[in-house]
Amino acid sequence: MKIVIDAFGGDNAPNEVIKAVRKAKDELQVDIILCGDEKKIKNTAKELSINIDDIEIIHAPEVFDVHEQPTKILKEGKNTSLAVGLQALKEGKGDAFVSAGSSGGLIVGASTCVGRIRGIKRPSMSAMLPTISGRRIMLTDAGANAQCRPEMLLQFAVMGSAYMKCVKGIENPRVGLLNIGAEETKGRELELETYQLLKNAPLNFAGNAEAREVPTGNFDVIVSDGFSGNIVLKLYEGMGSMFKKKLKGWFSGFFGKLSAVLVMKEIKEFQQLMDYKTEGGGIILGVAKPVIKAHGSSDKKAFFHAIRQAKLCVEGNMIVEITRTMEELKGD
Amino acid sequence: MKIVIDAFGGDNAPNEVIKAVRKAKDELQVDIILCGDEKKIKNTAKELSINIDDIEIIHAPEVFDVHEQPTKILKEGKNTSLAVGLQALKEGKGDAFVSAGSSGGLIVGASTCVGRIRGIKRPSMSAMLPTISGRRIMLTDAGANAQCRPEMLLQFAVMGSAYMKCVKGIENPRVGLLNIGAEETKGRELELETYQLLKNAPLNFAGNAEAREVPTGNFDVIVSDGFSGNIVLKLYEGMGSMFKKKLKGWFSGFFGKLSAVLVMKEIKEFQQLMDYKTEGGGIILGVAKPVIKAHGSSDKKAFFHAIRQAKLCVEGNMIVEITRTMEELKGD
Repeated sequence: MKIVIDAFGGDNAPNEVIKAVRKAKDELQVDIILCGDEKKIKNTAKELSINIDDIEIIHAPEVFDVHEQPTKILKEGKNTSLAVGLQALKEGKGDAFVSAGSSGGLIVGASTCVGRIRGIKRPSMSAMLPTISGRRIMLTDAGANAQCRPEMLLQFAVMGSAYMKCVKGIENPRVGLLNIGAEETKGRELELETYQLLKNAPLNFAGNAEAREVPTGNFDVIVSDGFSGNIVLKLYEGMGSMFKKKLKGWFSGFFGKLSAVLVMKEIKEFQQLMDYKTEGGGIILGVAKPVIKAHGSSDKKAFFHAIRQAKLCVEGNMIVEITRTMEELKGD
Repeated sequence: MKIVIDAFGGDNAPNEVIKAVRKAKDELQVDIILCGDEKKIKNTAKELSINIDDIEIIHAPEVFDVHEQPTKILKEGKNTSLAVGLQALKEGKGDAFVSAGSSGGLIVGASTCVGRIRGIKRPSMSAMLPTISGRRIMLTDAGANAQCRPEMLLQFAVMGSAYMKCVKGIENPRVGLLNIGAEETKGRELELETYQLLKNAPLNFAGNAEAREVPTGNFDVIVSDGFSGNIVLKLYEGMGSMFKKKLKGWFSGFFGKLSAVLVMKEIKEFQQLMDYKTEGGGIILGVAKPVIKAHGSSDKKAFFHAIRQAKLCVEGNMIVEITRTMEELKGD
């Protein structure tokens, strides 16, 4: 298996990417293609005293700026490490792609250059959320498609379900539709119509999921449009950071520190639960090959786990599962 | 000032309502009209050894069921304590109304029976959210209007701003539009158009508010449609309950309890911050008189604070302020 990597995506590129790539090559039994300025990659590896002789490099002289208009990836940006990497994926040089660069550029580039799975209208950008159950669950669109139609949400559900099955090993993922009430009659036209589509789809549809149920882990897949999903994701971040600040305040000073020592194990477990770095990144679902969006601020650890996630998507035959369910839907 | 109260709304009615009403009459210098089955009210007061001789009762033989279709409040439900209370408000027998009963029934009833402020298209159901700053902020619609038009969001902003000014004493409330990015070009058509309306309105509009900023307290008013707002409110509840469970787990057992003792003051402060009972209830904004929706599970304390909130709306001349700004908008 060969994973194509954007060496110049994210705040800590290329240093942390190169560190992560070395670790992945050594521990995950995958081959790697690094895309980016060859000279810079080699110099950085040398500075870091990391041997990359066994890692292929495809030269790409430019970097796609994170503030650039996403559609520019198609023409003006075609010599960037992001575009060159996606092109390599398209040409079959690798089996999956990982980048910590521009989300928009990645979605537009992957969708247009690599292409979509047959029948998929729009790829989604999915995110994994921690829950109190200890398991992580999938939010189908965390911001790629602000405005959706019911058939798009149905496809997100199919793709999310396939990911949870193939990558997380959940036999029959429980799918919930993000909504403002449990009853079938709740929500906007979008939810009312989507509910009917989901009910009749070859999925384990468990009904509407109110936002308060997201952190419980009662559902494996939360189906959302990109607007509502983005609100969930960012409020998760915001609330998490609010509680972190509170905890930090409590456990400072003499008595606070003493108190913290007494519950250290529990606090560490909780921090681990909330740590996005061990999960991987966002998943661009609907593209013909696995594409992972690592967090923009990824360090070695986070980027390594994004590579691991890409490997699991390939190994688990996620694309085959999505394609199969899409065929099944079409046959209905 | 006279506050009209639905004696039979909520899970703990009429007992907790009667207790709260006694406390309000004694401590808030307000007169009270209780609506509901007169015999039951008097018997309950007797059982509780609470003197209600100085409290007016308007007899209403029925109770509006919380699972009932909201529109039924207008005909089939017109003899319920909820409808009779709203009718008393309309007829000028009181200055504000408080109920812990059906949200839907309250919104439909208030909007139709009491009537809307001139120019207001749809009343909103606003909620107050705790923030790390210690202050509470307003979410303009927590679920009443799942589908909104831009001019509705503009009106929500005007009403939310008036509440924060008149009731919470904030001179120039910072208004933020709930959105998926900070830039003016982010969001759906709804947000794009609303942004332009807010920019030109007589409000302290501070731009888009991403969901992660909600718990920081950087904004006083978060303008949202009822769908997105409901997601924010319920995820707040869900995340809060997740952290509460975690804390409970940490601070149990010998070392945990010892640890808790050391940070008791801080934990108590935090619990107080998150306690909805001291804030009051949701506010039905846009109706011609102040209407407060107390939490369905309100106890004496929560219901008392809802009455207090109603009093503050009247004292602060909130309706006058909304009417004034609506006139100003019309004059543009």
